[in-house]
Amino acid sequence: MIANLSSAARKAGVVLAHASRAQKDDAIEAIAVALLARESEILAANNDDVIRSRSEGISESLIDRLMLNSARIAGIAGGARKIKALPDPIGVIKRERTLPNGLHLKQVSVPFGVVGMVYEARPNVTVDAAVILLKSGNCALLRGSSSAAKSNEILVSIMRDAVASVGLPADVIQLVPSTDRSSVTELLHARGLVDLVIPRGSAALIRTVVDEAKVPTIETGAGVCHVYVDKDGDLAKALPILINSKVQRPSVCNAAETLLVHSEIADTFLPMALDALNSEHVVLHGDAKTVEVARKLGINASLAREENWSTEYGVLEMNVRVVDSVDQAAEHIRKYGTNHTDAIISENPRAIESFINQMDAAAVMINASTRFTDGEEMGFGAEIGISNQKAHARGPMGLEEMTTTTWIVTGTGQIRG
Amino acid sequence: MIANLSSAARKAGVVLAHASRAQKDDAIEAIAVALLARESEILAANNDDVIRSRSEGISESLIDRLMLNSARIAGIAGGARKIKALPDPIGVIKRERTLPNGLHLKQVSVPFGVVGMVYEARPNVTVDAAVILLKSGNCALLRGSSSAAKSNEILVSIMRDAVASVGLPADVIQLVPSTDRSSVTELLHARGLVDLVIPRGSAALIRTVVDEAKVPTIETGAGVCHVYVDKDGDLAKALPILINSKVQRPSVCNAAETLLVHSEIADTFLPMALDALNSEHVVLHGDAKTVEVARKLGINASLAREENWSTEYGVLEMNVRVVDSVDQAAEHIRKYGTNHTDAIISENPRAIESFINQMDAAAVMINASTRFTDGEEMGFGAEIGISNQKAHARGPMGLEEMTTTTWIVTGTGQIRG
Repeated sequence: MIANLSSAARKAGVVLAHASRAQKDDAIEAIAVALLARESEILAANNDDVIRSRSEGISESLIDRLMLNSARIAGIAGGARKIKALPDPIGVIKRERTLPNGLHLKQVSVPFGVVGMVYEARPNVTVDAAVILLKSGNCALLRGSSSAAKSNEILVSIMRDAVASVGLPADVIQLVPSTDRSSVTELLHARGLVDLVIPRGSAALIRTVVDEAKVPTIETGAGVCHVYVDKDGDLAKALPILINSKVQRPSVCNAAETLLVHSEIADTFLPMALDALNSEHVVLHGDAKTVEVARKLGINASLAREENWSTEYGVLEMNVRVVDSVDQAAEHIRKYGTNHTDAIISENPRAIESFINQMDAAAVMINASTRFTDGEEMGFGAEIGISNQKAHARGPMGLEEMTTTTWIVTGTGQIRG
Repeated sequence: MIANLSSAARKAGVVLAHASRAQKDDAIEAIAVALLARESEILAANNDDVIRSRSEGISESLIDRLMLNSARIAGIAGGARKIKALPDPIGVIKRERTLPNGLHLKQVSVPFGVVGMVYEARPNVTVDAAVILLKSGNCALLRGSSSAAKSNEILVSIMRDAVASVGLPADVIQLVPSTDRSSVTELLHARGLVDLVIPRGSAALIRTVVDEAKVPTIETGAGVCHVYVDKDGDLAKALPILINSKVQRPSVCNAAETLLVHSEIADTFLPMALDALNSEHVVLHGDAKTVEVARKLGINASLAREENWSTEYGVLEMNVRVVDSVDQAAEHIRKYGTNHTDAIISENPRAIESFINQMDAAAVMINASTRFTDGEEMGFGAEIGISNQKAHARGPMGLEEMTTTTWIVTGTGQIRG
């Protein structure tokens, strides 16, 4: 089945790869217009999914991810228009040189070709991914969750109509059936048919994709992020950054899981921090010093076990530890972290430099919330996911990350000696 | 065992990641000097490997790859000095912007960390890879072939001494024992311990690595490369390019396997081409037209079977086909090729553009030999391999391809709204 989808995508992809920016932008605008115009069809299909999912006993938090409404559809269309406004990532000259033998070399950005997405209940990913892939000249094979089957069917149908309306082949966007799990396996094994597969969703989904894939894939996800408050930190900045990093949206990968506090300011900052976290209903796990301070404040904090330090809670739960130096903070982070996003709160340039040099993270935040590791926040327009690996892309992935390159070598008859 | 090597490498890597260019270059110079100074030790160890391998019945072509001599050692040292002369790929600012909320973003190149190499008999790869990884701030775990065990031991020992002599930790270069195959499996499964594994060698080795790896890996290798001679091709350029592409070194991935000739010039060019290939002892497989022309010339050419068109011969053997257009040539290449390197010989800009637009290759050669897809030829200094995948790197991989990035985000207390 993937062979058929891929074959149609490859044919369509030759056209899309060389479509002008104007034509791709017209297609995206047509998608945005059609999503808004056909809202009632989308909501009806989505309602079917919600009713069926509820009857199957799916949790209300998943239902919330699945459910669409007018505002969410408007948000999805607005997101597409943000992508439209961004420069074309294709045809950009990355490197260029003329060799002593007269050969002219040019490394040009080109699309991957056929990109598979494997994701969960959120139907907005269907449109976000398709639009990012369209603008970057890639054909999308979209494998969403069966719980969103009806929503994804109508969304893909609307997008295919819109793409065809501007004269591009509809097959640049295709839905992979979600009726059974074999379509995921087939996609992950489709070497030569699919150029890249990106998983987006729970840690379990990502692990499955990375473990099973025989095609190139990009590991997204896991984030055990840290906030380190240095002895030279401005505590008036530290407190809101800590709360924002932990509380604003605890379920996402860039939320913080562990607070590290320099011992020289622990007596001042720890009570402030524990009190603020407690007020936000954050369950606390601490080292001995933290537990002692908490007890004096009448705040509940359990003694952290070894496994707590490396746990991605994803809920209002946090570890707190007192450290004696930047080096000790860095050592802790390198031991227990996942190299996603780690923040330092300090006004001391030497401490900041030392911290940066000892991190091995996709993003290091200096006096800013860990929550900023996000494509939209960082000016990428939207993101197709956050890479938590080092190869190909690291951190938020937008249009540029969905390209590869070709070397165009122009000669006048040169041969190798 | 990999856990111990990786742990030592991680520790050493923190130092190497922030070493100055001067210090890394000093280490490389010390390696070059020591390789030349300790030539007799290297040759003695290598001679042991050659004797043992011969007694085990290893083929003479493999013995040739394994064997070192003074000239080869001088070549290896010279290669190291070429890497030394290249700019430092670490600390380069890739993107930089200030957001409306005042956050300053800087994407900086950093090393991967710990990179594993899995390769075959050539001991020069031991030094080439270690030096490229050293200059790009990465720690090398080198897993060569057991047939080169003694050679690799002395080479790694010499390099570790040299690195330590300039004050960098010796553990940035480590040899993975080649006594049994389990060390390869362990390396490929070492998620979190190894950031990237690069295979270099036969198609079978690469396939094994890509299939087994649970760590990120880069597929190198397979090349079914084409030379297409257009109706507007300059035949005085076409003939030497064809011969160079096929004959100069048929065993490598950028050698050509198939010649496509436009029907309008077939009567002129085909006899020239078949005669020249025949003089170079190239075994020929052709379509009906080619076989007919060959017969008239008294040259032996068998009718190509379907599988011939997608075979990477790696020896003096070639397919020849007559096509009616650039489009038909492109269609053939997309169907049977491996997207490595494809060449067009033409003086017609429209034909060239159409060819480029229909290719999906790591490199497209215009009036030049396919053999130029090579890091050293393309000005990379040396190469650690040629990527034949689209993610992370495509085509020759040198220093820049051995880096990843970190986002450094500097704020003044920003939190996300």
